Amino acid sequence: MFTTVLTRGPVVRPEIARITGLSSAAVTKAVKPMIEAGYLAELTQSVRAAEGAGRPAYPLAIRADREFFVGVKVTADELIGVITDLRAEVRAASRMPVSGRSVEQVVADVAALVAELTPQFADRIHHVGVSVSGDVDRPGGLVRYSPFLGWRDVALAELVGAATGLEVTVENDVKALTVAEQWFGEGVGADSFALATVGVGIGCGLVVNGRLVPGGYGVAGEIGHIPVAAGDGPTCHCGSRGCVEAIASEEAIVARAREAAGDPGLDMAGAILRAHDGDAAVRAVFAEAGQAIGLGLAAMVNLVGPERVVVSGEGLAAYDLFEEQIRAAFSRQAFGAAERCPLVVRPLPWEEWARGAAAVSIQSLFAP
Amino acid sequence: MFTTVLTRGPVVRPEIARITGLSSAAVTKAVKPMIEAGYLAELTQSVRAAEGAGRPAYPLAIRADREFFVGVKVTADELIGVITDLRAEVRAASRMPVSGRSVEQVVADVAALVAELTPQFADRIHHVGVSVSGDVDRPGGLVRYSPFLGWRDVALAELVGAATGLEVTVENDVKALTVAEQWFGEGVGADSFALATVGVGIGCGLVVNGRLVPGGYGVAGEIGHIPVAAGDGPTCHCGSRGCVEAIASEEAIVARAREAAGDPGLDMAGAILRAHDGDAAVRAVFAEAGQAIGLGLAAMVNLVGPERVVVSGEGLAAYDLFEEQIRAAFSRQAFGAAERCPLVVRPLPWEEWARGAAAVSIQSLFAP
Repeated sequence: MFTTVLTRGPVVRPEIARITGLSSAAVTKAVKPMIEAGYLAELTQSVRAAEGAGRPAYPLAIRADREFFVGVKVTADELIGVITDLRAEVRAASRMPVSGRSVEQVVADVAALVAELTPQFADRIHHVGVSVSGDVDRPGGLVRYSPFLGWRDVALAELVGAATGLEVTVENDVKALTVAEQWFGEGVGADSFALATVGVGIGCGLVVNGRLVPGGYGVAGEIGHIPVAAGDGPTCHCGSRGCVEAIASEEAIVARAREAAGDPGLDMAGAILRAHDGDAAVRAVFAEAGQAIGLGLAAMVNLVGPERVVVSGEGLAAYDLFEEQIRAAFSRQAFGAAERCPLVVRPLPWEEWARGAAAVSIQSLFAP
Repeated sequence: MFTTVLTRGPVVRPEIARITGLSSAAVTKAVKPMIEAGYLAELTQSVRAAEGAGRPAYPLAIRADREFFVGVKVTADELIGVITDLRAEVRAASRMPVSGRSVEQVVADVAALVAELTPQFADRIHHVGVSVSGDVDRPGGLVRYSPFLGWRDVALAELVGAATGLEVTVENDVKALTVAEQWFGEGVGADSFALATVGVGIGCGLVVNGRLVPGGYGVAGEIGHIPVAAGDGPTCHCGSRGCVEAIASEEAIVARAREAAGDPGLDMAGAILRAHDGDAAVRAVFAEAGQAIGLGLAAMVNLVGPERVVVSGEGLAAYDLFEEQIRAAFSRQAFGAAERCPLVVRPLPWEEWARGAAAVSIQSLFAP
């Protein structure tokens, strides 16, 4: 109910009833405590129902300033933090290098970042979301496995809670971004959609039948480990062969570009530069990466059938070098009507990852 | 509510409340009309609550004979029909060759098969489910596209309804099988599971977040069109390259076995015979098919994260020739904890497909 108002903007009660399938009595009953708690406000300007008849209706709107939320994305080198309002709009942002990768150091750093960000919102901040790449057990508040940090079974929610005094929700970083899209972005109103991230890893968050796909064993959306070249592809860090990630992750692109250019010191920025300068061998490396990503996206769409796909991630810096191949491979591989599924390309500054973590904490409050 | 009793067997009201999350008052209220309509019966033998205290509870059970359902699977050559009870247990079965592939002929044949099957259950049959391979719009009652029958946009539900006088539900055949597993088989109690079929095509039905995955554009579960050998694989009938189906469908296996054996007249039974006789080249064809299927299953599990996978289909006649490769490729490609997802192998006689269609008609009655 709340999410309907949250995501559809000011909306009258009959419209809420229509969207949620609840009776008008149920809507009125559900709305009352939310108005009393200050999360919803009744606008004073009435609108007439579309039919022109009936009583005037007063639209309900979110009071975006009623509460603020912290979101922190933890990487191996840096923390990115934001404060958002109830609509997940970013109101403040900050970054901080981590002082080390031990659990104690990262928890202390998160607490310091929160302390830096929150003063001006202090009495209206009660929740923080923390996102980490890897296997995260959100209901349990656990980071089960984080390869970049080298953590296993860390009770991160409890530790950050003790250090900050806030309610903590932890989530996998790609799933957190997906929640932000589901509630506040391209996923609004979609029964199914996918968010794919291209960069250090190739990941994917999925919403199917209106809810995030958690994975029966905590694994889902691993578009990077679809084997598109099992016979003749390169070895992947997962132990298999020809995975999308073995061809199109930043590390894979850099390794292949170094070989193509005969320059063992080349980095990603250098590879992009060479490709833009017309180096055919390096351009081919990006083209192959684009093809692998396009095939992976098509395999995902053929299986899961999302209504649309958002393609994002820090790897988009090189997007002009492989967009054509992504789209061509996607079109070729998409099965039948699945080709109609739009690919929406979206830049992804690091603050968006932190906003994803904040969105998860908003979701925890209203749809625990 | 009904599905809880349906799928869990006799069960007391407090248990229903626990499973469904409804209040006991809501359960009592929901149960009453179902008892009155004769779908549920209260068993006279009481059971004490586990705690030993409280009032005695009378378990509720399905009255399996209260109503019967027809299920018909339509293939290009033959109709397979069954009658099931409310628990989807088959009570009668029959087959009939189709008199032709035109819509009129198939509808008349379906009506004739229904007329043959129903007399002894007549007054307790009101619903028929019809399943067809291809793109089926269940809510619209349409077969949008059936490659084997050569149909486009056929209002099959309406036509069969007019010819039989029954309520008709149409569904894609693999999705119908998946519904049967979801309500009456391996999928009971699973929030997510997958049913993969191996045979003429390689298909997959998915349940995610407790519901069948419909596909935003009607396409989902197309495990056959995951490109596992995009670089060096054979051309697929879909226009792409290296799809699982291009390596492991019955047609692909036969084509490759003919080439391997140098015998253009070889059929599937002959290929299996040769492989069992130790023909190394033909055995390699099955081994490659098994590897492609295993990779496809792993890609699906990496993406969707089902709690378990049922592997089925008429192609299982050759299962001993590729099981080892399926399991090895699956284990190698499954990402992290996804490897724990069990593959349950299940033979699939044609009547099971018809039972799937009947299961869909049961579902339409209770969860429209």
